[in-house]
Amino acid sequence: MKKIFLIAFITPLTVFAQNNLSDSAFIKRISDNILLSRASYNNLHTLTKTIGGRLAGSPQMVKAEQWGAQALRNAGADDVTLQECIVPHWVRGGKDKASVTYKNANGKTETMQLNVLALGNSVGSGAKAVQASLVRVNSFDELEQKKDEVKGKIVFYNCPFDDTLIRTFEAYGKNVVYRTTGASRAAKYGAVAVLIRSMSNSTNNNPHTGSMRYDESLPKIPAAAVGLRDVEKLDTLFDNNMQITAQLFTYGKMLPDTIGHNVVGELKGTEFPNEVITVGGHLDSWDVNEGAHDDGTGVTQTIEVLRAFKALGFQPKHTIRFVLFANEENGARGGKKYAELAKQNNEKPIFALESDAGGFTPRGFSFTVSDSSWNKIIAWKNLFEPYGGSDFSRGGGGTDIEPLNKTFGTPVAEFIPDSQRYFDIHHSAGDVFEAVNARELKLGAINIAALLYLVDKYGL
Amino acid sequence: MKKIFLIAFITPLTVFAQNNLSDSAFIKRISDNILLSRASYNNLHTLTKTIGGRLAGSPQMVKAEQWGAQALRNAGADDVTLQECIVPHWVRGGKDKASVTYKNANGKTETMQLNVLALGNSVGSGAKAVQASLVRVNSFDELEQKKDEVKGKIVFYNCPFDDTLIRTFEAYGKNVVYRTTGASRAAKYGAVAVLIRSMSNSTNNNPHTGSMRYDESLPKIPAAAVGLRDVEKLDTLFDNNMQITAQLFTYGKMLPDTIGHNVVGELKGTEFPNEVITVGGHLDSWDVNEGAHDDGTGVTQTIEVLRAFKALGFQPKHTIRFVLFANEENGARGGKKYAELAKQNNEKPIFALESDAGGFTPRGFSFTVSDSSWNKIIAWKNLFEPYGGSDFSRGGGGTDIEPLNKTFGTPVAEFIPDSQRYFDIHHSAGDVFEAVNARELKLGAINIAALLYLVDKYGL
Repeated sequence: MKKIFLIAFITPLTVFAQNNLSDSAFIKRISDNILLSRASYNNLHTLTKTIGGRLAGSPQMVKAEQWGAQALRNAGADDVTLQECIVPHWVRGGKDKASVTYKNANGKTETMQLNVLALGNSVGSGAKAVQASLVRVNSFDELEQKKDEVKGKIVFYNCPFDDTLIRTFEAYGKNVVYRTTGASRAAKYGAVAVLIRSMSNSTNNNPHTGSMRYDESLPKIPAAAVGLRDVEKLDTLFDNNMQITAQLFTYGKMLPDTIGHNVVGELKGTEFPNEVITVGGHLDSWDVNEGAHDDGTGVTQTIEVLRAFKALGFQPKHTIRFVLFANEENGARGGKKYAELAKQNNEKPIFALESDAGGFTPRGFSFTVSDSSWNKIIAWKNLFEPYGGSDFSRGGGGTDIEPLNKTFGTPVAEFIPDSQRYFDIHHSAGDVFEAVNARELKLGAINIAALLYLVDKYGL
Repeated sequence: MKKIFLIAFITPLTVFAQNNLSDSAFIKRISDNILLSRASYNNLHTLTKTIGGRLAGSPQMVKAEQWGAQALRNAGADDVTLQECIVPHWVRGGKDKASVTYKNANGKTETMQLNVLALGNSVGSGAKAVQASLVRVNSFDELEQKKDEVKGKIVFYNCPFDDTLIRTFEAYGKNVVYRTTGASRAAKYGAVAVLIRSMSNSTNNNPHTGSMRYDESLPKIPAAAVGLRDVEKLDTLFDNNMQITAQLFTYGKMLPDTIGHNVVGELKGTEFPNEVITVGGHLDSWDVNEGAHDDGTGVTQTIEVLRAFKALGFQPKHTIRFVLFANEENGARGGKKYAELAKQNNEKPIFALESDAGGFTPRGFSFTVSDSSWNKIIAWKNLFEPYGGSDFSRGGGGTDIEPLNKTFGTPVAEFIPDSQRYFDIHHSAGDVFEAVNARELKLGAINIAALLYLVDKYGL
């Protein structure tokens, strides 16, 4: 209680003090405010535990939009609007299930259940299942070599993460193409379904879903991800030259497009109201978890930055938009709509920042900016060192802000938290509230707030 | 499987290559080897799940010593020895329990159970319990103000962590004195027991034990730590001016000293065998958990560095000792014995490094070294950047290597992982295998191995 009184006492002074404080002193004030507040962690609890998984088009996503609008109002937005946008509407439709059957060393038939999840956007096998011989390929090259063998069969893509890469997103980036395009590439040679090794380096057996897309010129076949421990067991069977039959039950269905919304809170700029800084995360998540690190943390950090700015009486020169995007996971329609409206409204987007790599302890930011902006930014590095976020690199962005960059050439950046734990839980049942540490979440918000403060003050 | 063959193939080349590789190339080789090996994570699993909590003097600690010696042999130590040392032998003796009784707003008596753990080295109340009025103090200053009120009562120390400190060890360092000395300071004024707010910033209710010590000139009174959610409930009762009676059951007992061992593996130096680099963690842990982050990760990283060095054919110029210390938690006798024997044997300890801050994602190292050594060290920073461990600072060391520094003036350092999650689980039931991420554990070992490699090659 004492701490709350203290903050209440400090607040009126800060409006006056804002321009007289050094940058490091103001950032320290942001840090203290966020670390002493329970708001971000409580918001994450509500979003994950009360609403839960929220794929675009789902009833949970509608609830999440209402919650997000209210949370932005509570945090002190001058204005909150919902930007309507048309979103895809995929449903899982049932409990995904798979098994393999093979003859053991004694010639006896054995069946092993596999822990699987249908990939997002994929068609279902339905209750009649797909049943066929299983063919293992470790790469697309191997698929090409075996192209004459896969007709009428189920292809099992088994390309492991390159664990020697320190940044796990690099390993994911190299392999995710098996998830996104593997089904159609196998369908081209007549395969009837695909199983893919989960995009993960986890030590558990949770399967990891995620979006895929079909080549519309080819037959659409069911596609599911397999947990890594089951992948190891499958590998042993293949290594022993077993003949394996797989059976897959999935029920996925793409329903007609429906209506979703970007939820947008705003702090009006005092000097340049038409020049807009955007910060955001995506409100939608997969259906199989609570969407905690992906991207409940980005959403609650976005709201937390607004709350802290208001609590400290910070009045930005430029308008800052706090955006909870509608549809990152299986369509990226939210970000497209946001840029489209910015264009329609003749706005001048001067910077956009996305937090969509998890709520882990901060490492830094990655920027796609001009050389002159980059030179400005690296001079700020030392301000981030006390808060763990000083690892600055180039090339970063994000799915939801890329359309701004494409449309306007807007400088963009992504928040980079530590990536070691992300693919343990990403798109799997493990992405729940309990996987988030309250202080790591808050430290992310602190670093994001500091960067927005500096961009607003000094420009890019 | 392919990866294992690859490593086997590379090994014979590396002995030759060692001196021809750049430092960054050799460190990359260390990194690849450790990231592709399951040895460290498997070792941690065995230590935590098969042996479990292992306080000095316990049967589990005897098992841990045997396991540790074998693990060091398996990793390729030239020699493994057990250094006998006399250790304290405290036992918890039973299930700690506490409750408070108070009259609610309607005058009705209510009882609330508290989640508690007796502090290590404390005396027990026994089955008759201690029962007395509870007095809350938020600091030692407040204890002094209330010194005439505490006679015959139980003192409740309630000083929260300073959550605005980014490095959580600083908050712990400021408050731990309530745990270590609070009982005797209250006993001085006639208190009959103490409850302390757990040394934690966790969002759960697990109590956190840890060592305390008595002033031998004062009565020894029972002492226990309370979980933070129960602390909040107690606070509400006190804020409402309730009269509170507490009842505490603990059974702690200090048995006669017994025999423990430091477990020491060695790689013999090729040029300076009498000049010794020490690296280690402590094998003992508290009894209420699996001692995973404290300090199973330090132990398994120590063994992993040895394994990787041997696997890569690295032959150090100086002798490197891989030490699993006997008794860090409640006596620090292992480190003292290690320095004592080094003195007896006329060794020249040139550097010592401890990993005892958890197996979280690496941040860097903290050094207690001369200015000239420091200038050498900071020139290595860029070699650590790819592996997350480049945050170098001064002033660090560790309980088990401090005696080397005291006795010989040996330069010492500690491995600094990210500290945000540590006090969620430190000394509590939450410090289990599942709280450790395999890649974070391995990245720690990589950074430690890199530092030892550089110190061996260039000296300090």
